Amino acid sequence: MGGSLALAIRPWVSHLTVVDTDRETLAAAKVFADEVTDDFATGVSEADLIVLAAPVRTILNLLRLLPKLRTKRCMILDLGSSKREITSAMNALPESFQAIGGHPLCGREKSGFQAATPELFKNHTFVLCRNARTSSDVEKAAVELVNVIGSKPLFLGADIHDELLAGTSHLPYLLSAALMRLTGQSSGAAAWELTASGFRDTARLSGSSPVVMLDILLTNQDSVLSRLEAYRGELVKVAEIIRSGDETQLLAWMLEAQQQHNEYRSTGKGE
Amino acid sequence: MGGSLALAIRPWVSHLTVVDTDRETLAAAKVFADEVTDDFATGVSEADLIVLAAPVRTILNLLRLLPKLRTKRCMILDLGSSKREITSAMNALPESFQAIGGHPLCGREKSGFQAATPELFKNHTFVLCRNARTSSDVEKAAVELVNVIGSKPLFLGADIHDELLAGTSHLPYLLSAALMRLTGQSSGAAAWELTASGFRDTARLSGSSPVVMLDILLTNQDSVLSRLEAYRGELVKVAEIIRSGDETQLLAWMLEAQQQHNEYRSTGKGE
Repeated sequence: MGGSLALAIRPWVSHLTVVDTDRETLAAAKVFADEVTDDFATGVSEADLIVLAAPVRTILNLLRLLPKLRTKRCMILDLGSSKREITSAMNALPESFQAIGGHPLCGREKSGFQAATPELFKNHTFVLCRNARTSSDVEKAAVELVNVIGSKPLFLGADIHDELLAGTSHLPYLLSAALMRLTGQSSGAAAWELTASGFRDTARLSGSSPVVMLDILLTNQDSVLSRLEAYRGELVKVAEIIRSGDETQLLAWMLEAQQQHNEYRSTGKGE
Repeated sequence: MGGSLALAIRPWVSHLTVVDTDRETLAAAKVFADEVTDDFATGVSEADLIVLAAPVRTILNLLRLLPKLRTKRCMILDLGSSKREITSAMNALPESFQAIGGHPLCGREKSGFQAATPELFKNHTFVLCRNARTSSDVEKAAVELVNVIGSKPLFLGADIHDELLAGTSHLPYLLSAALMRLTGQSSGAAAWELTASGFRDTARLSGSSPVVMLDILLTNQDSVLSRLEAYRGELVKVAEIIRSGDETQLLAWMLEAQQQHNEYRSTGKGE
Protein backbone atom coordinates (compact mmCIF):
# COMPACT_ATOMS: atom_id res chain seq x y z
CA MET A 1 0.00 0.00 0.00
CA GLY A 2 2.97 2.30 0.65
CA GLY A 3 4.22 1.61 -2.87
CA SER A 4 0.82 2.38 -4.38
CA LEU A 5 0.64 5.64 -2.43
CA ALA A 6 4.14 6.65 -3.53
CA LEU A 7 3.13 6.11 -7.17
CA ALA A 8 -0.18 7.93 -6.68
CA ILE A 9 1.31 11.05 -5.08
CA ARG A 10 4.38 11.18 -7.33
CA PRO A 11 2.94 13.92 -9.63
CA TRP A 12 1.89 15.95 -6.57
CA VAL A 13 5.21 16.22 -4.70
CA SER A 14 8.41 18.04 -5.67
CA HIS A 15 10.71 15.57 -3.91
CA LEU A 16 9.86 11.96 -3.07
CA THR A 17 11.99 9.81 -0.77
CA VAL A 18 11.14 6.12 -0.37
CA VAL A 19 12.32 4.40 2.81
CA ASP A 20 12.26 0.60 3.00
CA THR A 21 14.43 -2.19 4.34
CA ASP A 22 13.83 -4.45 1.34
CA ARG A 23 16.46 -4.18 -1.43
CA GLU A 24 14.14 -5.17 -4.25
CA THR A 25 11.60 -2.59 -3.17
CA LEU A 26 14.27 0.10 -3.12
CA ALA A 27 15.49 -0.95 -6.58
CA ALA A 28 11.94 -0.74 -7.93
CA ALA A 29 11.32 2.60 -6.20
CA LYS A 30 14.48 4.11 -7.72
CA VAL A 31 12.71 4.23 -11.07
CA PHE A 32 10.31 6.96 -9.96
CA ALA A 33 11.50 8.31 -6.59
CA ASP A 34 14.04 11.15 -6.21
CA GLU A 35 15.77 9.32 -3.40
CA VAL A 36 15.64 5.85 -1.85
CA THR A 37 17.18 4.73 1.43
CA ASP A 38 17.01 1.88 3.91
CA ASP A 39 17.74 4.29 6.77
CA PHE A 40 14.67 5.79 8.42
CA ALA A 41 16.66 8.64 10.00
CA THR A 42 18.05 9.71 6.62
CA GLY A 43 14.65 9.35 4.96
CA VAL A 44 12.83 11.63 7.39
CA SER A 45 15.57 14.22 7.91
CA GLU A 46 14.31 16.71 5.30
CA ALA A 47 10.72 15.63 4.58
CA ASP A 48 7.86 18.13 4.98
CA LEU A 49 5.35 15.29 5.08
CA ILE A 50 6.20 11.83 6.40
CA VAL A 51 3.79 9.05 5.42
CA LEU A 52 4.08 5.93 7.57
CA ALA A 53 2.95 2.83 5.66
CA ALA A 54 3.66 -0.32 7.66
CA PRO A 55 2.01 -2.83 10.01
CA VAL A 56 0.35 -0.97 12.91
CA ARG A 57 2.91 -1.81 15.58
CA THR A 58 5.76 -0.82 13.27
CA ILE A 59 4.03 2.54 12.84
CA LEU A 60 3.80 2.80 16.64
CA ASN A 61 7.54 2.12 16.95
CA LEU A 62 8.37 4.68 14.27
CA LEU A 63 6.20 7.29 16.01
CA ARG A 64 8.17 6.67 19.21
CA LEU A 65 11.47 6.99 17.32
CA LEU A 66 10.63 10.16 15.39
CA PRO A 67 11.20 12.78 18.16
CA LYS A 68 14.82 11.59 18.41
CA LEU A 69 15.39 11.76 14.67
CA ARG A 70 13.62 14.92 13.73
CA THR A 71 13.60 18.24 15.58
CA LYS A 72 12.47 20.55 12.74
CA ARG A 73 8.70 20.96 12.30
CA CYS A 74 7.07 18.38 10.00
CA MET A 75 3.78 16.74 9.14
CA ILE A 76 2.93 13.06 9.65
CA LEU A 77 0.23 10.86 8.15
CA ASP A 78 -0.04 7.11 8.67
CA LEU A 79 -1.88 4.36 6.78
CA GLY A 80 -2.46 1.95 9.70
CA SER A 81 -5.60 -0.22 9.75
CA SER A 82 -6.42 0.32 13.43
CA LYS A 83 -6.39 3.86 14.78
CA ARG A 84 -6.84 3.92 18.55
CA GLU A 85 -3.26 3.16 19.57
CA ILE A 86 -1.81 5.23 16.74
CA THR A 87 -3.90 8.20 17.86
CA SER A 88 -2.52 7.80 21.40
CA ALA A 89 1.02 7.68 20.04
CA MET A 90 0.41 10.79 17.92
CA ASN A 91 -1.03 12.58 20.97
CA ALA A 92 2.28 11.93 22.73
CA LEU A 93 4.43 13.55 19.99
CA PRO A 94 6.25 16.84 20.76
CA GLU A 95 4.57 20.02 19.49
CA SER A 96 6.97 20.32 16.56
CA PHE A 97 4.99 17.50 14.93
CA GLN A 98 1.69 18.00 13.14
CA ALA A 99 0.07 14.62 12.81
CA ILE A 100 -3.13 13.02 11.51
CA GLY A 101 -4.19 9.38 11.34
CA GLY A 102 -5.24 7.83 8.05
CA HIS A 103 -6.76 4.59 6.81
CA PRO A 104 -7.45 4.05 3.12
CA LEU A 105 -10.19 1.42 2.78
CA CYS A 106 -8.94 -0.43 -0.24
CA GLY A 107 -8.24 -4.13 -0.59
CA ARG A 108 -4.80 -5.32 0.31
CA GLU A 109 -4.93 -9.06 -0.35
CA LYS A 110 -1.79 -8.74 -2.42
CA SER A 111 1.16 -7.01 -0.84
CA GLY A 112 4.63 -6.09 -1.95
CA PHE A 113 5.85 -3.55 -4.45
CA GLN A 114 5.04 -5.76 -7.46
CA ALA A 115 1.34 -5.35 -6.69
CA ALA A 116 1.60 -1.55 -6.34
CA THR A 117 -0.63 0.62 -8.53
CA PRO A 118 -1.49 4.33 -8.33
CA GLU A 119 -5.11 3.38 -9.11
CA LEU A 120 -5.49 1.46 -5.82
CA PHE A 121 -7.17 4.36 -4.01
CA LYS A 122 -9.59 5.49 -6.71
CA ASN A 123 -13.14 5.92 -5.38
CA HIS A 124 -12.34 4.42 -1.99
CA THR A 125 -13.09 5.94 1.40
CA PHE A 126 -9.99 7.31 3.15
CA VAL A 127 -10.61 7.68 6.88
CA LEU A 128 -8.84 10.57 8.63
CA CYS A 129 -8.54 10.61 12.45
CA ARG A 130 -7.80 13.86 14.24
CA ASN A 131 -5.71 13.90 17.43
CA ALA A 132 -4.02 16.36 19.79
CA ARG A 133 -1.32 17.06 17.16
CA THR A 134 -3.71 17.71 14.29
CA SER A 135 -3.27 21.30 13.05
CA SER A 136 -5.35 22.86 10.29
CA ASP A 137 -2.25 22.69 8.06
CA VAL A 138 -1.81 18.92 8.34
CA GLU A 139 -5.55 18.44 7.96
CA LYS A 140 -5.51 20.50 4.77
CA ALA A 141 -2.49 18.60 3.43
CA ALA A 142 -4.10 15.24 4.22
CA VAL A 143 -7.37 16.16 2.51
CA GLU A 144 -5.44 17.37 -0.53
CA LEU A 145 -3.46 14.13 -0.66
CA VAL A 146 -6.65 12.08 -0.34
CA ASN A 147 -8.21 14.03 -3.21
CA VAL A 148 -5.10 13.76 -5.37
CA ILE A 149 -5.12 9.96 -5.16
CA GLY A 150 -8.83 9.82 -6.00
CA SER A 151 -10.18 8.78 -2.58
CA LYS A 152 -12.98 10.34 -0.54
CA PRO A 153 -11.95 11.72 2.88
CA LEU A 154 -14.09 10.71 5.87
CA PHE A 155 -13.28 12.21 9.30
CA LEU A 156 -13.93 9.76 12.11
CA GLY A 157 -12.94 9.35 15.75
CA ALA A 158 -10.37 6.61 16.35
CA ASP A 159 -12.71 4.78 18.77
CA ILE A 160 -15.59 4.68 16.31
CA HIS A 161 -13.25 3.72 13.49
CA ASP A 162 -11.84 0.77 15.42
CA GLU A 163 -15.27 -0.38 16.58
CA LEU A 164 -16.77 -0.28 13.10
CA LEU A 165 -13.74 -1.78 11.37
CA ALA A 166 -13.75 -4.64 13.88
CA GLY A 167 -17.08 -5.59 12.30
CA THR A 168 -16.48 -4.75 8.64
CA SER A 169 -12.87 -5.86 8.27
CA HIS A 170 -11.23 -7.64 11.21
CA LEU A 171 -14.17 -9.99 11.88
CA PRO A 172 -14.57 -10.91 8.18
CA TYR A 173 -10.87 -11.80 8.10
CA LEU A 174 -11.25 -14.10 11.12
CA LEU A 175 -14.37 -15.72 9.65
CA SER A 176 -12.58 -16.37 6.40
CA ALA A 177 -9.48 -17.76 8.12
CA ALA A 178 -11.55 -20.01 10.41
CA LEU A 179 -13.45 -21.34 7.37
CA MET A 180 -10.22 -22.10 5.54
CA ARG A 181 -8.67 -23.83 8.56
CA LEU A 182 -11.76 -25.94 9.17
CA THR A 183 -12.18 -26.97 5.54
CA GLY A 184 -8.50 -27.81 5.16
CA GLN A 185 -8.33 -29.76 8.41
CA SER A 186 -11.53 -31.73 7.99
CA SER A 187 -11.52 -32.65 4.33
CA GLY A 188 -8.32 -31.36 2.77
CA ALA A 189 -7.72 -31.63 -0.95
CA ALA A 190 -11.00 -33.52 -1.59
CA ALA A 191 -12.91 -30.43 -0.47
CA TRP A 192 -11.26 -28.08 -2.95
CA GLU A 193 -12.82 -30.02 -5.84
CA LEU A 194 -16.21 -29.30 -4.33
CA THR A 195 -15.90 -25.54 -4.08
CA ALA A 196 -17.48 -22.92 -6.29
CA SER A 197 -17.28 -19.13 -6.43
CA GLY A 198 -19.13 -18.77 -3.11
CA PHE A 199 -16.40 -20.58 -1.22
CA ARG A 200 -13.69 -18.79 -3.16
CA ASP A 201 -15.01 -15.36 -2.19
CA THR A 202 -15.77 -16.24 1.43
CA ALA A 203 -12.31 -17.75 1.80
CA ARG A 204 -10.38 -15.00 0.02
CA LEU A 205 -9.46 -12.90 3.07
CA SER A 206 -7.82 -15.94 4.69
CA GLY A 207 -4.90 -15.26 2.34
CA SER A 208 -4.21 -11.88 4.01
CA SER A 209 -0.77 -11.30 5.49
CA PRO A 210 -0.64 -12.81 9.01
CA VAL A 211 1.98 -10.24 10.02
CA VAL A 212 -0.26 -7.32 9.08
CA MET A 213 -3.34 -8.95 10.65
CA LEU A 214 -1.48 -9.78 13.88
CA ASP A 215 -0.86 -6.10 14.55
CA ILE A 216 -4.42 -5.14 13.69
CA LEU A 217 -5.98 -7.80 15.93
CA LEU A 218 -3.68 -7.05 18.87
CA THR A 219 -4.19 -3.28 18.68
CA ASN A 220 -7.97 -3.68 18.41
CA GLN A 221 -8.40 -6.61 20.78
CA ASP A 222 -11.47 -5.42 22.71
CA SER A 223 -13.58 -4.45 19.72
CA VAL A 224 -12.59 -7.60 17.83
CA LEU A 225 -13.47 -9.84 20.78
CA SER A 226 -16.80 -8.12 21.24
CA ARG A 227 -17.70 -8.52 17.54
CA LEU A 228 -16.63 -12.17 17.64
CA GLU A 229 -18.85 -12.72 20.66
CA ALA A 230 -21.86 -11.12 18.97
CA TYR A 231 -21.17 -13.11 15.83
CA ARG A 232 -21.06 -16.38 17.72
CA GLY A 233 -24.46 -15.39 19.10
CA GLU A 234 -25.82 -15.18 15.54
CA LEU A 235 -24.44 -18.64 14.79
CA VAL A 236 -25.98 -20.10 17.96
CA LYS A 237 -29.30 -18.56 16.97
CA VAL A 238 -29.32 -19.94 13.43
CA ALA A 239 -28.13 -23.37 14.61
CA GLU A 240 -31.10 -23.51 17.00
CA ILE A 241 -33.50 -22.53 14.24
CA ILE A 242 -32.07 -25.14 11.84
CA ARG A 243 -32.23 -27.79 14.58
CA SER A 244 -35.86 -26.94 15.34
CA GLY A 245 -36.73 -27.16 11.65
CA ASP A 246 -38.90 -24.03 12.00
CA GLU A 247 -39.22 -22.99 8.37
CA THR A 248 -40.85 -19.63 9.05
CA GLN A 249 -38.11 -18.56 11.44
CA LEU A 250 -35.33 -19.83 9.20
CA LEU A 251 -36.77 -18.05 6.19
CA ALA A 252 -37.10 -14.83 8.22
CA TRP A 253 -33.48 -15.13 9.39
CA MET A 254 -32.28 -15.52 5.80
CA LEU A 255 -34.58 -12.85 4.39
CA GLU A 256 -33.19 -10.27 6.81
CA ALA A 257 -29.67 -11.13 5.66
CA GLN A 258 -30.71 -10.80 2.03
CA GLN A 259 -32.42 -7.48 2.71
CA GLN A 260 -29.35 -6.08 4.50
CA HIS A 261 -27.31 -7.24 1.51
CA ASN A 262 -29.66 -5.39 -0.84
CA GLU A 263 -29.33 -2.21 1.24
CA TYR A 264 -25.57 -2.59 1.30
CA ARG A 265 -25.48 -3.06 -2.46
CA SER A 266 -27.76 -0.07 -3.00
CA THR A 267 -24.96 2.12 -1.61
CA GLY A 268 -22.82 1.00 -4.55
CA LYS A 269 -20.29 -0.56 -2.14
CA GLY A 270 -21.28 -4.12 -2.93
CA GLU A 271 -20.47 -3.89 -6.64
CA MET B 1 -29.62 -22.60 -13.51
CA GLY B 2 -32.33 -24.47 -15.41
CA GLY B 3 -32.35 -21.71 -18.02
CA SER B 4 -28.59 -21.84 -18.41
CA LEU B 5 -28.70 -25.60 -18.82
CA ALA B 6 -31.48 -25.36 -21.42
CA LEU B 7 -29.34 -22.92 -23.43
CA ALA B 8 -26.21 -25.06 -23.02
CA ILE B 9 -27.80 -28.33 -24.17
CA ARG B 10 -29.87 -26.75 -26.95
CA PRO B 11 -27.41 -27.77 -29.74
CA TRP B 12 -27.26 -31.31 -28.33
CA VAL B 13 -30.97 -32.23 -28.27
CA SER B 14 -33.40 -32.76 -31.14
CA HIS B 15 -36.43 -31.56 -29.19
CA LEU B 16 -36.35 -29.23 -26.18
CA THR B 17 -39.37 -28.62 -23.95
CA VAL B 18 -39.13 -25.98 -21.21
CA VAL B 19 -41.53 -26.33 -18.26
CA ASP B 20 -41.97 -23.39 -15.89
CA THR B 21 -44.80 -21.69 -14.02
CA ASP B 22 -43.46 -18.18 -14.69
CA ARG B 23 -44.92 -16.48 -17.77
CA GLU B 24 -41.90 -14.30 -18.48
CA THR B 25 -39.60 -17.30 -18.33
CA LEU B 26 -41.80 -19.18 -20.78
CA ALA B 27 -41.88 -16.18 -23.12
CA ALA B 28 -38.07 -15.95 -23.02
CA ALA B 29 -37.71 -19.73 -23.50
CA LYS B 30 -39.95 -19.67 -26.57
CA VAL B 31 -37.13 -18.03 -28.49
CA PHE B 32 -34.96 -21.13 -28.46
CA ALA B 33 -37.10 -24.05 -27.19
CA ASP B 34 -39.24 -26.27 -29.44
CA GLU B 35 -42.04 -26.24 -26.89
CA VAL B 36 -42.86 -24.37 -23.69
CA THR B 37 -45.54 -25.23 -21.16
CA ASP B 38 -46.57 -24.41 -17.61
CA ASP B 39 -47.94 -27.93 -17.15
CA PHE B 40 -45.49 -30.46 -15.77
CA ALA B 41 -47.55 -33.44 -16.97
CA THR B 42 -47.56 -32.15 -20.55
CA GLY B 43 -43.88 -31.29 -20.39
CA VAL B 44 -42.74 -34.75 -19.30
CA SER B 45 -45.17 -36.81 -21.39
CA GLU B 46 -42.80 -37.43 -24.32
CA ALA B 47 -39.35 -36.57 -22.99
CA ASP B 48 -36.53 -39.12 -23.18
CA LEU B 49 -34.55 -37.20 -20.58
CA ILE B 50 -36.20 -35.09 -17.89
CA VAL B 51 -33.92 -32.57 -16.14
CA LEU B 52 -35.31 -31.30 -12.83
CA ALA B 53 -33.94 -27.82 -12.02
CA ALA B 54 -35.66 -26.40 -8.95
CA PRO B 55 -35.23 -25.95 -5.19
CA VAL B 56 -34.47 -29.33 -3.58
CA ARG B 57 -37.88 -29.92 -2.01
CA THR B 58 -39.64 -29.04 -5.27
CA ILE B 59 -37.48 -31.69 -6.95
CA LEU B 60 -38.53 -34.15 -4.23
CA ASN B 61 -42.21 -33.35 -4.90
CA LEU B 62 -41.77 -33.74 -8.66
CA LEU B 63 -40.04 -37.10 -8.16
CA ARG B 64 -43.06 -38.25 -6.12
CA LEU B 65 -45.43 -37.01 -8.84
CA LEU B 66 -43.61 -38.51 -11.82
CA PRO B 67 -44.78 -42.16 -11.51
CA LYS B 68 -48.40 -40.96 -11.89
CA LEU B 69 -47.62 -38.83 -14.93
CA ARG B 70 -45.27 -41.02 -16.87
CA THR B 71 -45.48 -44.75 -17.44
CA LYS B 72 -43.17 -45.08 -20.48
CA ARG B 73 -39.47 -45.57 -19.76
CA CYS B 74 -37.48 -42.36 -19.38
CA MET B 75 -34.31 -40.91 -17.91
CA ILE B 76 -34.12 -38.37 -15.08
CA LEU B 77 -31.35 -36.04 -13.97
CA ASP B 78 -31.72 -33.36 -11.30
CA LEU B 79 -29.67 -30.28 -10.42
CA GLY B 80 -30.40 -30.08 -6.69
CA SER B 81 -27.75 -28.77 -4.30
CA SER B 82 -28.20 -31.47 -1.63
CA LYS B 83 -28.26 -35.09 -2.73
CA ARG B 84 -29.15 -37.41 0.18
CA GLU B 85 -32.93 -36.97 0.12
CA ILE B 86 -33.05 -36.80 -3.66
CA THR B 87 -31.15 -40.09 -3.86
CA SER B 88 -33.69 -41.69 -1.51
CA ALA B 89 -36.55 -40.37 -3.64
CA MET B 90 -34.89 -41.68 -6.81
CA ASN B 91 -34.39 -45.09 -5.14
CA ALA B 92 -38.15 -45.22 -4.60
CA LEU B 93 -39.02 -44.65 -8.29
CA PRO B 94 -40.58 -47.51 -10.27
CA GLU B 95 -38.21 -49.50 -12.48
CA SER B 96 -39.41 -47.77 -15.63
CA PHE B 97 -37.34 -44.77 -14.51
CA GLN B 98 -33.60 -44.53 -14.98
CA ALA B 99 -32.36 -41.79 -12.69
CA ILE B 100 -29.12 -40.13 -11.61
CA GLY B 101 -28.51 -37.24 -9.24
CA GLY B 102 -26.57 -34.19 -10.39
CA HIS B 103 -25.10 -31.03 -8.86
CA PRO B 104 -23.26 -28.52 -11.04
CA LEU B 105 -20.90 -26.53 -8.80
CA CYS B 106 -21.23 -23.13 -10.36
CA GLY B 107 -22.18 -19.88 -8.69
CA ARG B 108 -25.85 -19.03 -8.54
CA GLU B 109 -25.95 -15.68 -6.75
CA LYS B 110 -28.11 -14.34 -9.55
CA SER B 111 -31.19 -16.32 -10.44
CA GLY B 112 -33.96 -16.01 -12.99
CA PHE B 113 -33.93 -16.45 -16.71
CA GLN B 114 -32.39 -13.02 -17.34
CA ALA B 115 -29.18 -14.23 -15.76
CA ALA B 116 -29.09 -17.44 -17.81
CA THR B 117 -26.01 -18.15 -19.91
CA PRO B 118 -24.83 -21.35 -21.65
CA GLU B 119 -21.31 -20.55 -20.41
CA LEU B 120 -22.31 -20.98 -16.74
CA PHE B 121 -21.03 -24.55 -16.53
CA LYS B 122 -17.71 -24.16 -18.34
CA ASN B 123 -14.80 -25.70 -16.40
CA HIS B 124 -16.89 -26.40 -13.31
CA THR B 125 -17.20 -29.68 -11.47
CA PHE B 126 -20.53 -31.45 -12.05
CA VAL B 127 -21.18 -34.00 -9.31
CA LEU B 128 -23.08 -37.13 -10.32
CA CYS B 129 -24.68 -39.39 -7.66
CA ARG B 130 -25.60 -42.95 -8.49
CA ASN B 131 -28.65 -44.59 -6.90
CA ALA B 132 -30.75 -47.75 -7.19
CA ARG B 133 -32.27 -46.46 -10.46
CA THR B 134 -28.99 -45.60 -12.14
CA SER B 135 -28.55 -47.68 -15.28
CA SER B 136 -25.47 -47.56 -17.49
CA ASP B 137 -27.63 -45.77 -20.09
CA VAL B 138 -28.58 -42.86 -17.85
CA GLU B 139 -25.01 -42.70 -16.54
CA LYS B 140 -23.72 -42.47 -20.11
CA ALA B 141 -26.30 -39.81 -21.02
CA ALA B 142 -25.46 -37.76 -17.92
CA VAL B 143 -21.70 -37.86 -18.59
CA GLU B 144 -22.32 -36.84 -22.20
CA LEU B 145 -24.50 -33.93 -21.08
CA VAL B 146 -21.88 -32.85 -18.55
CA ASN B 147 -19.20 -32.91 -21.25
CA VAL B 148 -21.40 -31.06 -23.74
CA ILE B 149 -21.88 -28.14 -21.37
CA GLY B 150 -18.14 -27.98 -20.62
CA SER B 151 -18.20 -29.29 -17.04
CA LYS B 152 -16.10 -32.06 -15.50
CA PRO B 153 -18.08 -35.06 -14.15
CA LEU B 154 -17.24 -36.27 -10.63
CA PHE B 155 -19.00 -39.36 -9.27
CA LEU B 156 -19.63 -39.11 -5.54
CA GLY B 157 -21.85 -40.82 -2.98
CA ALA B 158 -24.78 -38.70 -1.80
CA ASP B 159 -23.65 -38.90 1.84
CA ILE B 160 -20.12 -37.70 1.08
CA HIS B 161 -21.47 -35.01 -1.23
CA ASP B 162 -23.77 -33.62 1.43
CA GLU B 163 -21.12 -33.78 4.13
CA LEU B 164 -18.50 -32.00 2.02
CA LEU B 165 -20.92 -29.43 0.60
CA ALA B 166 -22.10 -28.61 4.11
CA GLY B 167 -18.57 -27.30 4.66
CA THR B 168 -17.76 -25.77 1.28
CA SER B 169 -21.14 -24.24 0.43
CA HIS B 170 -23.88 -24.35 3.07
CA LEU B 171 -21.65 -23.20 5.92
CA PRO B 172 -20.11 -20.34 3.89
CA TYR B 173 -23.64 -19.15 3.09
CA LEU B 174 -24.59 -19.13 6.79
CA LEU B 175 -21.35 -17.32 7.73
CA SER B 176 -21.99 -14.69 5.11
CA ALA B 177 -25.63 -14.21 6.12
CA ALA B 178 -24.75 -13.99 9.82
CA LEU B 179 -22.10 -11.37 9.02
CA MET B 180 -24.57 -9.32 7.02
CA ARG B 181 -27.26 -9.51 9.73
CA LEU B 182 -24.81 -8.55 12.46
CA THR B 183 -23.30 -5.65 10.54
CA GLY B 184 -26.69 -4.31 9.50
CA GLN B 185 -28.19 -4.62 12.98
CA SER B 186 -25.30 -3.17 14.92
CA SER B 187 -24.16 -0.28 12.79
CA GLY B 188 -26.44 -0.05 9.77
CA ALA B 189 -25.76 2.42 6.99
CA ALA B 190 -22.71 3.92 8.76
CA ALA B 191 -20.96 0.58 8.44
CA TRP B 192 -21.35 0.34 4.66
CA GLU B 193 -19.14 3.43 4.21
CA LEU B 194 -16.43 1.55 6.07
CA THR B 195 -16.36 -1.56 3.94
CA ALA B 196 -13.83 -2.55 1.31
CA SER B 197 -13.53 -5.49 -1.07
CA GLY B 198 -12.89 -7.93 1.78
CA PHE B 199 -16.31 -7.28 3.30
CA ARG B 200 -17.95 -7.26 -0.11
CA ASP B 201 -16.67 -10.73 -0.95
CA THR B 202 -17.30 -12.25 2.47
CA ALA B 203 -20.84 -10.85 2.46
CA ARG B 204 -21.69 -11.79 -1.13
CA LEU B 205 -23.35 -15.14 -0.45
CA SER B 206 -25.80 -13.48 1.96
CA GLY B 207 -27.62 -12.29 -1.16
CA SER B 208 -28.45 -15.89 -2.16
CA SER B 209 -32.09 -16.85 -2.59
CA PRO B 210 -33.60 -17.68 0.84
CA VAL B 211 -36.09 -20.03 -0.82
CA VAL B 212 -33.33 -22.08 -2.46
CA MET B 213 -31.20 -22.05 0.70
CA LEU B 214 -34.13 -23.05 2.93
CA ASP B 215 -34.50 -26.34 1.05
CA ILE B 216 -30.78 -27.02 1.07
CA LEU B 217 -30.41 -26.37 4.80
CA LEU B 218 -33.49 -28.42 5.74
CA THR B 219 -32.50 -31.39 3.57
CA ASN B 220 -28.93 -31.36 4.90
CA GLN B 221 -29.69 -30.47 8.51
CA ASP B 222 -27.34 -32.90 10.29
CA SER B 223 -24.25 -32.17 8.24
CA VAL B 224 -24.88 -28.42 8.35
CA LEU B 225 -25.33 -28.46 12.14
CA SER B 226 -22.19 -30.51 12.61
CA ARG B 227 -20.14 -28.11 10.43
CA LEU B 228 -21.60 -25.11 12.28
CA GLU B 229 -20.61 -26.70 15.59
CA ALA B 230 -17.05 -27.36 14.43
CA TYR B 231 -16.84 -23.83 13.06
CA ARG B 232 -17.97 -22.31 16.34
CA GLY B 233 -15.16 -24.31 17.93
CA GLU B 234 -12.65 -22.56 15.65
CA LEU B 235 -14.07 -19.17 16.66
CA VAL B 236 -13.90 -20.05 20.36
CA LYS B 237 -10.29 -21.08 19.88
CA VAL B 238 -9.22 -17.91 18.10
CA ALA B 239 -11.12 -15.71 20.57
CA GLU B 240 -9.21 -17.34 23.42
CA ILE B 241 -5.90 -16.78 21.65
CA ILE B 242 -6.71 -13.12 20.93
CA ARG B 243 -7.82 -12.61 24.55
CA SER B 244 -4.59 -14.17 25.85
CA GLY B 245 -2.53 -11.92 23.57
CA ASP B 246 -0.27 -14.89 22.75
CA GLU B 247 1.40 -13.63 19.56
CA THR B 248 3.08 -16.90 18.66
CA GLN B 249 -0.17 -18.85 18.84
CA LEU B 250 -2.15 -16.20 16.98
CA LEU B 251 0.44 -16.03 14.24
CA ALA B 252 0.42 -19.83 13.96
CA TRP B 253 -3.40 -19.86 13.73
CA MET B 254 -3.32 -17.30 10.92
CA LEU B 255 -0.37 -18.90 9.11
CA GLU B 256 -2.21 -22.21 8.91
CA ALA B 257 -5.20 -20.44 7.35
CA GLN B 258 -2.95 -18.70 4.85
CA GLN B 259 -1.20 -21.95 3.99
CA GLN B 260 -4.50 -23.77 3.42
CA HIS B 261 -5.52 -20.86 1.22
CA ASN B 262 -2.31 -21.22 -0.78
CA GLU B 263 -2.95 -24.95 -1.24
CA TYR B 264 -6.52 -24.24 -2.26
CA ARG B 265 -5.38 -21.63 -4.77
CA SER B 266 -2.71 -23.98 -6.13
CA THR B 267 -5.56 -26.22 -7.36
CA GLY B 268 -6.67 -23.35 -9.59
CA LYS B 269 -10.02 -23.22 -7.76
CA GLY B 270 -9.26 -19.99 -5.93
CA GLU B 271 -8.71 -17.92 -9.07
